[in-house]
Amino acid sequence: MASAGNDRSVRLWDPATGCELRRLEGHTDWVRALCAVTVDNHTLLASASDDRSVRLWDPATGCELRRLEGHTDWVRALCAVTVDNHTLLASASDDRTVRLWDPATGSELRRLEGHTDWVRALCAVTVNNHTLLATASNDRTVRLWDPITARCCFVIPVYHPAPACTALPGLLAVGLDVGILTIDLA
Amino acid sequence: MASAGNDRSVRLWDPATGCELRRLEGHTDWVRALCAVTVDNHTLLASASDDRSVRLWDPATGCELRRLEGHTDWVRALCAVTVDNHTLLASASDDRTVRLWDPATGSELRRLEGHTDWVRALCAVTVNNHTLLATASNDRTVRLWDPITARCCFVIPVYHPAPACTALPGLLAVGLDVGILTIDLA
Repeated sequence: MASAGNDRSVRLWDPATGCELRRLEGHTDWVRALCAVTVDNHTLLASASDDRSVRLWDPATGCELRRLEGHTDWVRALCAVTVDNHTLLASASDDRTVRLWDPATGSELRRLEGHTDWVRALCAVTVNNHTLLATASNDRTVRLWDPITARCCFVIPVYHPAPACTALPGLLAVGLDVGILTIDLA
Repeated sequence: MASAGNDRSVRLWDPATGCELRRLEGHTDWVRALCAVTVDNHTLLASASDDRSVRLWDPATGCELRRLEGHTDWVRALCAVTVDNHTLLASASDDRTVRLWDPATGSELRRLEGHTDWVRALCAVTVNNHTLLATASNDRTVRLWDPITARCCFVIPVYHPAPACTALPGLLAVGLDVGILTIDLA
């Protein structure tokens, strides 16, 4: 069962479960990454797609609030990064770039260039009380970036394609095709 | 440069950056998912691999603490689920099952069976003050499970393969091959 509301989403009710499903209309290809991002105390939904766009949605209405365009290939990963009490959205793409967006306006603030192959994962890490952005790529490096200046602070060879990363206290863990590396951030 | 310590990990120093890299020895294939899990106030690293195992590591020493074996195909996703003040680790696999593990002992507590294709993503959600586990599968359903009883509470047809999901306040967002669905959990 489906009905169209006066917002741009389409609602579906599943008669078996009674759940309301709401289709957020817009993306035209696989959505492989989703994350929550807080703007002015509201939780928004960010989505990344093979259609090369990142979109921000109001989860209460299903409306598309902002379309973040610029990537020229699949967008594979998203994370929120808070610097100076302001939350930014970071996106990693097969176009070899990472972009930092202001979720309040949808504008591209900074472009992180340097990786020479797909950027497959990213996360925020803390180094000496500074928040940096860590990125893992098929180019066999992990890079650490200053989200304020867009400067790449470290290029760390990891010798293998890196499809995953996550932050731990004082450490960055990286998933590889042959196992795991940790990088001491202390 | 590399040196072997008295733990089972291998340390590498990168002369260009001064970073210490530590290779956690064990996995024999792609590590596609990593997550932090807290056990007795210690943060451990959980990893999921195409080698069909999930492993728990002490990030301070690089030692493999526990090997969680049982999945019969690639393990694609991990998340921590806290029920009754006890944190469990959930793993999603191409073997169509989700397993719940006690990270303190490494034992498989419960097996969530029902999906008929790869389980590609999972996250914890809150429904009526109860913590449930949401799973998204290539079988074109999202399922909600009670982590205590292993019972599947809801099977929600989403009409498309579902490679991503994330929790938002009162909602579950699901990434599909054609866009996004949200499921109202209120």
